Amino acid sequence: MGEFGLIERIRRRAVDLSRGGRLVLGVGDDAAVLRPRPGFDLLATTDLLSEGVHFNLSWTSFYDLGVKAVAANISDIAAMGGTPTALLIALSLPPSTPAGRVDLFYRGVLDAAKPFSARLAGGDTTASPAGAGVTICVTALGEIERGRALTRSGARPGDLIFVSGTLGGSAGGLELLTHGTRFTPGRYRTDPVEEKPERSLIRAHLHPVPLVVLGRALAQGRLATAAIDVSDGLLADLGHIADESGVAAVVEIARIPVSPALRGVPRLGAKVESLAAAGGEDYELLFTARPEHAGKIERLARKCRFPVAPIGRVGPRRSGTPRVQTVDARGRTIRFEDLGYEHFRTAVRKRG
Amino acid sequence: MGEFGLIERIRRRAVDLSRGGRLVLGVGDDAAVLRPRPGFDLLATTDLLSEGVHFNLSWTSFYDLGVKAVAANISDIAAMGGTPTALLIALSLPPSTPAGRVDLFYRGVLDAAKPFSARLAGGDTTASPAGAGVTICVTALGEIERGRALTRSGARPGDLIFVSGTLGGSAGGLELLTHGTRFTPGRYRTDPVEEKPERSLIRAHLHPVPLVVLGRALAQGRLATAAIDVSDGLLADLGHIADESGVAAVVEIARIPVSPALRGVPRLGAKVESLAAAGGEDYELLFTARPEHAGKIERLARKCRFPVAPIGRVGPRRSGTPRVQTVDARGRTIRFEDLGYEHFRTAVRKRG
Repeated sequence: MGEFGLIERIRRRAVDLSRGGRLVLGVGDDAAVLRPRPGFDLLATTDLLSEGVHFNLSWTSFYDLGVKAVAANISDIAAMGGTPTALLIALSLPPSTPAGRVDLFYRGVLDAAKPFSARLAGGDTTASPAGAGVTICVTALGEIERGRALTRSGARPGDLIFVSGTLGGSAGGLELLTHGTRFTPGRYRTDPVEEKPERSLIRAHLHPVPLVVLGRALAQGRLATAAIDVSDGLLADLGHIADESGVAAVVEIARIPVSPALRGVPRLGAKVESLAAAGGEDYELLFTARPEHAGKIERLARKCRFPVAPIGRVGPRRSGTPRVQTVDARGRTIRFEDLGYEHFRTAVRKRG
Repeated sequence: MGEFGLIERIRRRAVDLSRGGRLVLGVGDDAAVLRPRPGFDLLATTDLLSEGVHFNLSWTSFYDLGVKAVAANISDIAAMGGTPTALLIALSLPPSTPAGRVDLFYRGVLDAAKPFSARLAGGDTTASPAGAGVTICVTALGEIERGRALTRSGARPGDLIFVSGTLGGSAGGLELLTHGTRFTPGRYRTDPVEEKPERSLIRAHLHPVPLVVLGRALAQGRLATAAIDVSDGLLADLGHIADESGVAAVVEIARIPVSPALRGVPRLGAKVESLAAAGGEDYELLFTARPEHAGKIERLARKCRFPVAPIGRVGPRRSGTPRVQTVDARGRTIRFEDLGYEHFRTAVRKRG
């Protein structure tokens, strides 16, 4: 499968997503050309995903791989409050990879890009070295009203901490996959699906839905002081906000919204809290806001049908106290390690 | 070496290149924020480079790796007639990689970005899977006056074909490295260096200089109808222009400007012509132009001190004739295979 044959395949497949939008010139030249929207800033983010580190082909199809790589990157644009405009995809494949799998991958890419109107602007396809597996590098470009990008660094003492949706679903799905449960979620969809808890968890892991609409609403309404998407896990990502903002965060463990599907799988019962607090890749939005905006945020959430829960508060950074502290309902510190946090984290990283 | 420690290292190292220019927010958030220049289009290109396929660490230092990854990507922006504005670098490394090598890599990145005022806007660093080597994904963003991007698709019958500089140097350098000659080119520089032919060839291979100034001049003067940088090799890249433009190209072999250093190494003597015509990674600009612009192009080349040579002519595409034809001074077809072209090409690809 030559690179140039592949470019043609992508072009044919991408008929409606390889043009239009901000894209003036797409796949097949030295660079893509995009026309920025006047009054908007440009967002750009890149992710490198390697087989055996970030994904496992024994339970991820090439279609799922395309979906997830794109959805995860669009989530970074959502976390900045932006709209995704274009994707650049670089793919390194073992030379023996059948062309059909490459087609499947791009079908996944396009299905995940389409609901967000992101265009496929270009890419690069090369052969993996002998013995190496599949590597994917996705770059997402987006746009946001000038000066309105939500960053990690704007949280201030007194802010409330909010998280959208529910957490732990993706990590629960990974847990099930790792232990042999199999489910192929089929075509990518962004609307909620009624299905058994196991399937729901695996879908959450393989086909995440980036929260572009919520990110846009927060940025346009100037409602958030800082934001990040939950990719490393709630507590780790809150740590990033705390570090970048120079503040500390206190989270009330009982307020962390747990995926109902997670509660629906008895054998995950003992891990529910740690999966929700520390499991990664839910791609929910974690953000801080001034307390006086709490009412607006609640109304927005109801209007958009995104549950958004207050889970804690931002405080000043003090030496000797942790940047992210977990407490019970009475404010007493809970050492999260006691819930198996570190162990879980390490295990997921190695298995992921 | 954790990812977050690395982000701090990059930030400290990149003091002057992680801010300013079009960059509003750089390394360390979910996405970088750039402010597009009014009246300009955005250029975006991505390249994935794998150890053992695109580079060989037995003769490429981590510094050289950073230099070349960036220079090659900036060259794509140059070939579109643009100015590079920002770079996103994703790096996958064996977990055992010493931090000092990562520093060296970023020193190379910044040294190659600086002459072109490109900013380091962000990136992603992850561990390579067990057994896999180093993988680099560079995304370069650039800007070009609205509607002026040079594409591969604008060549028309009657156009002249030009190439800048001299060719074959990089492939000659690779040939020497493959056969055991070693030379460390030291710090990246964009001005010509007086040195022995062997060193000059290896420098051409490890530290290429993208022709941003020439690309800018061609775009601003509306002098080129199509352009590409010589990365796959002159004849292959001319094939891309021919395909995208729906035309055929005729190249007079004797007019292809051969790297003088290549002629200065006796043991490469027999391969000189094929290295110049088919060797890749010289990052010269190959472009087509209306014949009435030939004088302007010559004057521009003299002014910028870039040699630019006319090497052939664009004709109509006809079934049964090759898209790229090589001829002697009298116009008689030379079958390039007779010069060992295919063999050479395959060999370089495997060794690269």
